[in-house]
Amino acid sequence: MLRQRLVICSVVALVVSALVYALNVSTPTAVAQPDPGSRAGSSAQPGTALSSQDISLEQARAAVDAAVAKSREMNVKMNIAVVDAGGNLKGFARMDGAWLGSIDIAQKKAKTARYFDMPTGEVGKLSQPGKPLYMIEVSNQGLITFPGGVPIRTQGDVVIGAIGVSGSTVENDDAVARAGAGAVK
Amino acid sequence: MLRQRLVICSVVALVVSALVYALNVSTPTAVAQPDPGSRAGSSAQPGTALSSQDISLEQARAAVDAAVAKSREMNVKMNIAVVDAGGNLKGFARMDGAWLGSIDIAQKKAKTARYFDMPTGEVGKLSQPGKPLYMIEVSNQGLITFPGGVPIRTQGDVVIGAIGVSGSTVENDDAVARAGAGAVK
Amino acid sequence: MLRQRLVICSVVALVVSALVYALNVSTPTAVAQPDPGSRAGSSAQPGTALSSQDISLEQARAAVDAAVAKSREMNVKMNIAVVDAGGNLKGFARMDGAWLGSIDIAQKKAKTARYFDMPTGEVGKLSQPGKPLYMIEVSNQGLITFPGGVPIRTQGDVVIGAIGVSGSTVENDDAVARAGAGAVK
Amino acid sequence: MLRQRLVICSVVALVVSALVYALNVSTPTAVAQPDPGSRAGSSAQPGTALSSQDISLEQARAAVDAAVAKSREMNVKMNIAVVDAGGNLKGFARMDGAWLGSIDIAQKKAKTARYFDMPTGEVGKLSQPGKPLYMIEVSNQGLITFPGGVPIRTQGDVVIGAIGVSGSTVENDDAVARAGAGAVK
Repeated sequence: MLRQRLVICSVVALVVSALVYALNVSTPTAVAQPDPGSRAGSSAQPGTALSSQDISLEQARAAVDAAVAKSREMNVKMNIAVVDAGGNLKGFARMDGAWLGSIDIAQKKAKTARYFDMPTGEVGKLSQPGKPLYMIEVSNQGLITFPGGVPIRTQGDVVIGAIGVSGSTVENDDAVARAGAGAVK
Repeated sequence: MLRQRLVICSVVALVVSALVYALNVSTPTAVAQPDPGSRAGSSAQPGTALSSQDISLEQARAAVDAAVAKSREMNVKMNIAVVDAGGNLKGFARMDGAWLGSIDIAQKKAKTARYFDMPTGEVGKLSQPGKPLYMIEVSNQGLITFPGGVPIRTQGDVVIGAIGVSGSTVENDDAVARAGAGAVK
Repeated sequence: MLRQRLVICSVVALVVSALVYALNVSTPTAVAQPDPGSRAGSSAQPGTALSSQDISLEQARAAVDAAVAKSREMNVKMNIAVVDAGGNLKGFARMDGAWLGSIDIAQKKAKTARYFDMPTGEVGKLSQPGKPLYMIEVSNQGLITFPGGVPIRTQGDVVIGAIGVSGSTVENDDAVARAGAGAVK
Repeated sequence: MLRQRLVICSVVALVVSALVYALNVSTPTAVAQPDPGSRAGSSAQPGTALSSQDISLEQARAAVDAAVAKSREMNVKMNIAVVDAGGNLKGFARMDGAWLGSIDIAQKKAKTARYFDMPTGEVGKLSQPGKPLYMIEVSNQGLITFPGGVPIRTQGDVVIGAIGVSGSTVENDDAVARAGAGAVK
């Protein structure tokens, strides 16, 4: 019973916070979900399978390559991970001398960005003490909720995967991740 | 309204902390990465293996011995772990009567210090609520971000491993870890 | 009586397998360790750091690219992982349509090959029921001991990492892994 | 219910196999337990605490040092772990160039040897397919049941810890472990 209540409270809090958040945030990466018609996994008719889109290896590599190029330009050493629409690892590269601890963090950032279809830093704003998603990080075998993970979208705004970058300040991580995501059309 | 304020406060706190962080970070072990030339893993030519350095068992033992000697001098009972350049356990000693719970913590401290090439306490400053690396501890199958882990460097400033100490106050843990790391030249 | 027989049979089987094992092991990748001088991590003098070599990102990519090319040639869909000398992930690619369950297996194969500096299939021969390394798979948070993981060596025979491939039969996995490892000089 | 039955069956099988085993085996390291009076943890009177003995750091180091010396003599590269009477890590050393995968195995061997107060190879005889302890390896967060782990006893035959060695053939591992254990008086 207690667990049920907690789950219900949690869902309510999530919905409320999403609404509040939508009112306050006006960046293009807001929590508010886009038109359902433009998302992967929409179904035209009952009884038919969902039609979806997913990132290709070629696209994943383009994202990784763009992120590596951006990192070199910024003189930072990064771990770069790309996950597909299912949140599963698709591509990965660790630059020479990059932090070992960032192997896992880059992957968790990519996973987190796709699991909630928003930049990881947006989740992090809601997971601080006293905020609606406090301690969400312990779910899903570990989430990372600071900047550096961003969804990868098609031009039609369908999320087909995500990129996670770790190895420097969160500002640098985020900049490199956006450069990587931007390389996928 | 309250919730709106919390969200706004959170954003403000994040911005402020980022600024404070930007102003405070000036130690050589800061998040900002040092001169690439001074790090292990540099490659002279494309297509060739990286030339690197690693801690020897003899060096690991020198670190452990110095840490035990320092602990006795301070009248504390410690767990002491040393990892190599790859973050893998190289040496370990638990002093008689030292906390059992510190076996894992000492190892996680050493791992954390090597994974990010900085003292664990530096990571911890950035992982507090509202700070850029909040909840980083859930990554890498568990990190420890309070003091007591420090990188082990060659005289040429190449990180060849790290030492983690646990068994007393974090100040004492840190002092013993530094004594251990200092014994390696 | 039956149980006594089983125990005796087991002892006999163990002795026989040990003998068979002793007779069979003669490949260069056998359990018997090669000339110490040819391994990474040798130290010229006491008290100094070990001089070692590690795989570069460029080399890791060359291995992944060669593995992808070989997979296309064989008309199979693979997950390909490359780890460095410390056993930490360096590069990864999942071909379009490749098994999701092989993401983890490819990484565990690469880890296993580096952890014991031999092809995973060699470990697997020794981990069968009644063989010397029976159930070694439960160690190291999971090892994979069927073919598809091979060490990556320099021309000087120093192990600088390993590649793990998963997505088809173990024979195909192994062929692709060897093609990948062979691309690194 | 099924689970209860399985547990009961398992306990019965364990007792039966221990008896059978005691009849068949005549080595000094048999499963049959020695005189209770000679074991750690005996209690003279009801209501009083157990009087026990435990390995000291100095003893653990003597064991590790003897194992390293023996390894050098045999020209093998080993991981060596020592656990105390509680099965918790007390000392560890990885020789330069030793297998990374053996870090965990050496520790699991030491743990296994102390958890059952017998050499790991003895447990392994009983864990083969069709044998009473089949698949016991998945318990206790991973056991290793091939040779290389042996209990460390006082001259009064009290088990005060165990040593686990991994890095070569199981015969070599076992020989080095016995050399280590034999250095503790």
